[in-house]
Amino acid sequence: MRVDGRNHNELRQVEMVLDYIKHAEGSVYICVGDTKVICTASVEERVPPFLRGSGKGWVTAEYAMLPRATQTRSIRESSKGKVGGRTMEIQRLIGRSLRSVVDLERLGERTVWLDCDVIQADGGTRTASITGAFVAMVSALHRLVKAGTLPALPVTDFLAATSVGIVNGQPSLDLCYDEDSQAKVDMNVVMTGSGKYVEIQGTGEEAPFSPEELTELLALAKEGTDRLIEKQREVLGRASEHIGGKTDGLRQADVAVD
Amino acid sequence: MRVDGRNHNELRQVEMVLDYIKHAEGSVYICVGDTKVICTASVEERVPPFLRGSGKGWVTAEYAMLPRATQTRSIRESSKGKVGGRTMEIQRLIGRSLRSVVDLERLGERTVWLDCDVIQADGGTRTASITGAFVAMVSALHRLVKAGTLPALPVTDFLAATSVGIVNGQPSLDLCYDEDSQAKVDMNVVMTGSGKYVEIQGTGEEAPFSPEELTELLALAKEGTDRLIEKQREVLGRASEHIGGKTDGLRQADVAVD
Amino acid sequence: MRVDGRNHNELRQVEMVLDYIKHAEGSVYICVGDTKVICTASVEERVPPFLRGSGKGWVTAEYAMLPRATQTRSIRESSKGKVGGRTMEIQRLIGRSLRSVVDLERLGERTVWLDCDVIQADGGTRTASITGAFVAMVSALHRLVKAGTLPALPVTDFLAATSVGIVNGQPSLDLCYDEDSQAKVDMNVVMTGSGKYVEIQGTGEEAPFSPEELTELLALAKEGTDRLIEKQREVLGRASEHIGGKTDGLRQADVAVD
Amino acid sequence: MRVDGRNHNELRQVEMVLDYIKHAEGSVYICVGDTKVICTASVEERVPPFLRGSGKGWVTAEYAMLPRATQTRSIRESSKGKVGGRTMEIQRLIGRSLRSVVDLERLGERTVWLDCDVIQADGGTRTASITGAFVAMVSALHRLVKAGTLPALPVTDFLAATSVGIVNGQPSLDLCYDEDSQAKVDMNVVMTGSGKYVEIQGTGEEAPFSPEELTELLALAKEGTDRLIEKQREVLGRASEHIGGKTDGLRQADVAVD
Amino acid sequence: MRVDGRNHNELRQVEMVLDYIKHAEGSVYICVGDTKVICTASVEERVPPFLRGSGKGWVTAEYAMLPRATQTRSIRESSKGKVGGRTMEIQRLIGRSLRSVVDLERLGERTVWLDCDVIQADGGTRTASITGAFVAMVSALHRLVKAGTLPALPVTDFLAATSVGIVNGQPSLDLCYDEDSQAKVDMNVVMTGSGKYVEIQGTGEEAPFSPEELTELLALAKEGTDRLIEKQREVLGRASEHIGGKTDGLRQADVAVD
Amino acid sequence: MRVDGRNHNELRQVEMVLDYIKHAEGSVYICVGDTKVICTASVEERVPPFLRGSGKGWVTAEYAMLPRATQTRSIRESSKGKVGGRTMEIQRLIGRSLRSVVDLERLGERTVWLDCDVIQADGGTRTASITGAFVAMVSALHRLVKAGTLPALPVTDFLAATSVGIVNGQPSLDLCYDEDSQAKVDMNVVMTGSGKYVEIQGTGEEAPFSPEELTELLALAKEGTDRLIEKQREVLGRASEHIGGKTDGLRQADVAVD
Repeated sequence: MRVDGRNHNELRQVEMVLDYIKHAEGSVYICVGDTKVICTASVEERVPPFLRGSGKGWVTAEYAMLPRATQTRSIRESSKGKVGGRTMEIQRLIGRSLRSVVDLERLGERTVWLDCDVIQADGGTRTASITGAFVAMVSALHRLVKAGTLPALPVTDFLAATSVGIVNGQPSLDLCYDEDSQAKVDMNVVMTGSGKYVEIQGTGEEAPFSPEELTELLALAKEGTDRLIEKQREVLGRASEHIGGKTDGLRQADVAVD
Repeated sequence: MRVDGRNHNELRQVEMVLDYIKHAEGSVYICVGDTKVICTASVEERVPPFLRGSGKGWVTAEYAMLPRATQTRSIRESSKGKVGGRTMEIQRLIGRSLRSVVDLERLGERTVWLDCDVIQADGGTRTASITGAFVAMVSALHRLVKAGTLPALPVTDFLAATSVGIVNGQPSLDLCYDEDSQAKVDMNVVMTGSGKYVEIQGTGEEAPFSPEELTELLALAKEGTDRLIEKQREVLGRASEHIGGKTDGLRQADVAVD
Repeated sequence: MRVDGRNHNELRQVEMVLDYIKHAEGSVYICVGDTKVICTASVEERVPPFLRGSGKGWVTAEYAMLPRATQTRSIRESSKGKVGGRTMEIQRLIGRSLRSVVDLERLGERTVWLDCDVIQADGGTRTASITGAFVAMVSALHRLVKAGTLPALPVTDFLAATSVGIVNGQPSLDLCYDEDSQAKVDMNVVMTGSGKYVEIQGTGEEAPFSPEELTELLALAKEGTDRLIEKQREVLGRASEHIGGKTDGLRQADVAVD
Repeated sequence: MRVDGRNHNELRQVEMVLDYIKHAEGSVYICVGDTKVICTASVEERVPPFLRGSGKGWVTAEYAMLPRATQTRSIRESSKGKVGGRTMEIQRLIGRSLRSVVDLERLGERTVWLDCDVIQADGGTRTASITGAFVAMVSALHRLVKAGTLPALPVTDFLAATSVGIVNGQPSLDLCYDEDSQAKVDMNVVMTGSGKYVEIQGTGEEAPFSPEELTELLALAKEGTDRLIEKQREVLGRASEHIGGKTDGLRQADVAVD
Repeated sequence: MRVDGRNHNELRQVEMVLDYIKHAEGSVYICVGDTKVICTASVEERVPPFLRGSGKGWVTAEYAMLPRATQTRSIRESSKGKVGGRTMEIQRLIGRSLRSVVDLERLGERTVWLDCDVIQADGGTRTASITGAFVAMVSALHRLVKAGTLPALPVTDFLAATSVGIVNGQPSLDLCYDEDSQAKVDMNVVMTGSGKYVEIQGTGEEAPFSPEELTELLALAKEGTDRLIEKQREVLGRASEHIGGKTDGLRQADVAVD
Repeated sequence: MRVDGRNHNELRQVEMVLDYIKHAEGSVYICVGDTKVICTASVEERVPPFLRGSGKGWVTAEYAMLPRATQTRSIRESSKGKVGGRTMEIQRLIGRSLRSVVDLERLGERTVWLDCDVIQADGGTRTASITGAFVAMVSALHRLVKAGTLPALPVTDFLAATSVGIVNGQPSLDLCYDEDSQAKVDMNVVMTGSGKYVEIQGTGEEAPFSPEELTELLALAKEGTDRLIEKQREVLGRASEHIGGKTDGLRQADVAVD
C-alpha cells in the first residue's frame, strides 16, 4: 500500500485546464495530484542564429518554480543571478522531448517557447511539465493552422511523461514527493503515442538497479504514459485528431469544417 | 465612458482565494480584472544581519511575472542573470508598504517573506500585489498566533493599494493596461484602513500635473482603497477583527474561542 | 530650530559650478549643503533600439556614489557585480523627470546621458542630482543649438527637485542626512518652473501621514523648487532665456546675437 | 563497417596514465581514441553545509573543456561568466555516478572533488570522464588508506561508462564524434562491476526508439563497460583488489603488506 | 618641443588638496595637469580572512573612472556587471605599491582601503592615483597616531609614481593623453623617497626598446618622482616628518607637541 | 646553491612538443621544469569591432589553470562567474607581448587566439605561456602561408619570456614556485631575438630594489631568453627561418621548396 493509498501502477488524479492564460497562443494548467504547473506556448516568428535561413523551426523550453512551490521557500534564481544545474537539466529535457514529435521543417522558421512554471510541487514536476507542454504546444500550433499560418499540424505523435521508481522495494508509478525522497531508483520516461521511448533517464544514485528491475519499471511507465495520452486526447478534442500519421497533420481543408 | 464600460470611480471585479498554495504559511490568489497574482507569505525564524539581536522582525517582498503574463513573452530575469530596475522598484515598494502596518517589535526576530508572482498581467500588478500580500501576511501571522508562537497579531491597520490616473483628460480609478498605456499621469497610492497615506508615487512623465488634478486623483484613490479593504475584511473573516487599534492585536485569550 | 539652525522652510546653501568637466558637452558641480554631485551630460548621436527610425530622441540617467561619499565606506557596485535596487530606482527617477521637460521629437534621434556621481553625501542626493542634471542638460543642448546641430532648444520648462519631510513633528524643507534618518515621512518632489508636479514620491514607512500633512509638505516643496529654479536661471544665464513656452525654444536666429 | 573500421561492438583504443599530475591526491590521463581527459581527485577535509556534523562525506565533480579541445574554438565559460547547461548536466552526472559506489559514511566528513578537464574531444567525453574519474578517486582514497587516514577503502564496486547509439541503423558501441553527430539514438550508460545500472540516459531526439532497440543497446553497453573495468583493474593494480564486497574494502592490516 | 610646451624632463602642474572629503579618515584631491583624481583612505578595524589572527594589517586599493572622465563617455563597470582587466590591473598595482612602504605588522590588524576615483582623465591616471593615495594614506594613519590608536606611523618611506615614454623618438617625462597615445614605449615607475624601485612596468607593444632607452627612461622617472615627493612633503607638513627610517615612525611622544 | 641544485643563471629543463592538439591550427605542449602548459593557436577569419574594415589583424590571448594545477585545488573561474584580476593581467600581458612581433597589417583581417592552459604549475606559468604561445602562433601562421592564405610569415622577430628575482640575496634566473614565494624582488621579462625589451614587469612589494640590482636581473633575463629562443628555433625547424628581418617573412616562393 502506498503512502496515499494508490496501487503501485496507479497514476495520481490528473486535471488539465486548457487556455488558462489569456495572452498565450496556447496554455494549460496541469495538476497531477498536488503538483500544479502552468504551461504556456508562445510562438515567435524567428529562430535562433544556427537555424536562420534553414527553413526549419525550433522548439525550446524554460522551467521554473515559484519560491513557495516547495515545502520551505527557495531562493529565486533571478536573485541568485544564475539558473541552477537542476533547472537547466530539466529545461533541456523538456525542449528535447517536445522537439522529438515536431516536424521542424513543417513548422517553418519560427520558434515555439514552452514555459513551464511550477505553482505547487509534490514530485514529478518535470514529467507533468512535459505532459502539459505538449498540450499547450499542440493548442498553439492548431491555432496557427486555423489562422492559415501553417498548412498542417506539424506534430508527428502524442507525447507524455511520467516517473517510476522503486519505493520500499516495490516498483511504483508516478511518485509523489514523499515517495520520491525515499526511492532507491528514480526514473523519468518520456514516451510517444506509438509506444516508443523519447527519453529514459534512470538514476540509481542510492543503489544501482538490475536489468530485471529496469524491465518492470519500463512496463509501468508505458501504462502511465498511455493513460496520460488518453487525457491529452480528451482535453485537446478535435485538435488531437490531426496529430501524427493518420492524416499527415491537420490540413487547411479540415479546418473549414472545424 | 471607459474602455471596459466602467465609471471613472469604479474598481474592476476583485476576487481573492485564501490558502491557495498548500505549503505556504499564508497565501492568496488575487484577481483584479484580468490581473492575477499569487501572493504567498513565508515565515522564517531569523532576520537579516542588521537586525540580529535587536528583538525586531522584518517584512520583505519579492515580485516577478511569469514570462507569458504579458501580451508578448518577456525574457525571464533568471536567464538575464539580473533583476531589472522595474522589478526592484516594485519589490521595494511592496516591502516598505507592508512594514508600515506591522509592529516589528511585536513580530519578534522573524522574517515574513512576501512573494508576489504575477500569473497574468493587465495593469495594476503592483497594487494588486500589495493588496493581496496584506491578506497573505495577516493569514500567516494569524496562524502564528493560533499556534501560540505570537501572543497577538502585530498588525496595526488594514492596507490596500490602487492606481489612479488621468486618461483622456478624465481622472480615473484602477487603470487596466489599455488605459495605463495612454494615461498622461499615473499614480499608485497605498493607504491604510484609517485613511492615511503610506505611499504616494505619482509620475507625470508624459505631462506634468497640477495641484488640482492631484487632489482629484487622491480622492479617487481613497474610494478605491476603502472598497478593497472591505473585500480584505470579508476574505480574512475572524482574523481581520484583530487588526489594528481596537483590540491592540489578537491576543491568545481571543484565540481560545476562535 | 533645526539641527543646522535653519528655518523649517529654508534650503541649505546651494552652489553650482558650470562646465566643471572639460570633456563633457555639459557639466555642473552642484553642492546643496554638504551634498556634492558632479552632473555631466553626454550627447550620443544614436538612440536605444525601441526608438530607431522614430525620429525621436531619448534622455536617460545613471547615478552612483563614490565609495567614501558616505560616513562609512560602501562597497562599489562594480565589485558587487550588480547595480542595487536603490540606485536603479534613483536613476529611473532622474531619467523620467528630465524627459518630462524635453520635447523628444525636437531633440531628434540622439540620446542625452546624464551621469550624476555623488562625491559627498549628506541627504538629498537624488534631488540635488535632478536639479544639477537639468543644468548640465540645458548647457549641453544649448551647445548643440549654438553649433547648429539643433534648430532650437527642445526644453519646455525649468525643472528642479527637493526633499521635504516631517522631522520632530515639524514639516521641513530640504532634509540633511541627520534629519532624513529621523524623519517620520520622507517625500521627494520634482516640479517645473510653471509649478506643476512631475514626480511625487512620498513614503510613510515609519508612520502613515494624513491628507493635511501632505498639503503642508507640498507647499514647502513648492517654495524650495522655486528658489532652486532661480539659482538655475542665474547659472545658465542666456541659455535659460530659451527654455519653455515664451520663445518656443532657442532659435538659430537668436544664436547669431548670442 | 564503421567510419574508423571498428566492429559495432568494439571500443576504441583505451589508455590510462596514473599519477599524471604531481600535486593531486589521485590523477589519471585517460585517452579513449582521440578523446583525452585529465581527471584529478582532490581530497578536502570538510563537507558542504548540508552534511556538516552528519559523519558522512561527499563526492562531487566538475567538468570542462579546453577552448580548443573541439574542432572550432569554443568560448571559455569563465569569459561568459556562467557555466552552461550541458556542462552542469555532465558534472551532475559524474558526481551522482561516482557517489553510487562510495560508502559515504565510511568516507567520513571529507569531500572528494573530481575534476575532469577535456584536453581533446572526439565524442564520449562524459563517459571517458566517469571511467577516468573512478580511477583517480580510487587512487586518492587508496592513498588515504595507506596514510592511515581511512581504515579501509570505502568503494563498493567498480564503475565505468560508455556510450551506445544507433548509427546508420546499426546499434554501435562507443561512438566517436562523427558517429555521434549522425546517431538517431544516443545513450550513455554507467554500470558497476557487478553488472548493475547506475545511470541510463537515452535520448531519441532525432527519432524515438523501440523497446527492442533499447535491449540491443543495453547489451552493447554491458560489453563495453566490462572491458573498461578490466582496464581499470590493470591500471589500479593492488588498489583494485580492495574494491567492493569481497574484502569489505581495503583494511589497514592489508596495507601493512601492500 | 612637446605638445603642451613642456621640456622633455618637466612634470605637468601638480596640485593636491588635503582633506577634500569630509567623511574619509584621509583624502586628497590631486591634479596632475588635467588629470584629476579623488583619493580617499578608509580605515576598517578588520583584515581579510588570510590575515585574521596574524597581527598584521592590510592595504588595498580600488580604482575607477567617472563615465565622463574620458573624451567620449565610457560605460560604467557596475552596468557591465564586471570590473574590466585594465581596472583590475591598476588597482592591484596601486595596492602592491602602497604596501611596499607600510610596515604591516606595525599597522596591526586593520585594513586601509584606498579609493582612487578619476574625475577627469588626461593621461597618467594610475600614477597620479598612487601619488595621491600615498598622501591620503599617510594622512589617515597620522590621524590614528594622533588619536592614540597607533603608537607610531607605520610608513617606511615616501612613495610616488610617474609615467615616462618615448614620444617622437624623445624620451619624455609625465605623458599627457595625446603623448601617451602616440608613444612607442610606455613605462610606469613607482619609486621610494630613497630612490629605490617599487614597480617598473614597461611596455613596448608598438616597438620593443633597447637597454639604452631603458636607462634614459629610468633616469627621467627618478627626476619626476623626486619632485613629486617634494610636493607630498609640503602638503603633508608635520605628518611627513615621521615617515621612514629617521625617526622610526611618528611616536606618541611626538604627538604631544604636534 | 638553489633549492633544485641549479646555478643562479641556469634555466630549468625545457621541453616543447609541437602539434600536441589535433584540432588546433598550431599547438605546443611546453614544460619548463614542472610547469606544464598547453598552448594552442586558433585562427579566426574576422577581427574585433574596432578593427573591422581596417585591413589589420589581431592577436589575443586567454590564460587559465586547471583547478588542480596548483598544490591545493583552486576554484574554477567559471564557477566563480568571473575572471580574476591575476588572470586578466596575465592574458593581457601575453596578448600584448605576442602582438609586438606580429605585423598586423600583413596578418590581414583575421584574429589569432592564443589559449594557454596550465596543466601543472610550479612557478613561471606566464613566461612559459608566452614562450610556448609564440611557437604555437608561428606554427599556425606558417600553416596559413603553406596553404597560400598568407603570402609571407608576418612575424618580425623571435619572442621569449622568463622570470628573474632576488632569492636569498642572490639574483637568480627562472624561479620555481619555492623560490618565487620567497623572492624579495620578482620580475618578468619578455625579450625579442634581437635583444630588445617587449615587457619588463618588476615588483618589489616585499622590498624595493636598487638600480644596481635591476641591472643584474636584466642581464640574467637576457641569458635566459636567448637560450629559450634557441629551443624555439629547434622546435620550429624550417618555419623559424622565415621569422623576422632576414627574409622579410616567409614568401610563397619559399614554400614551393618547403
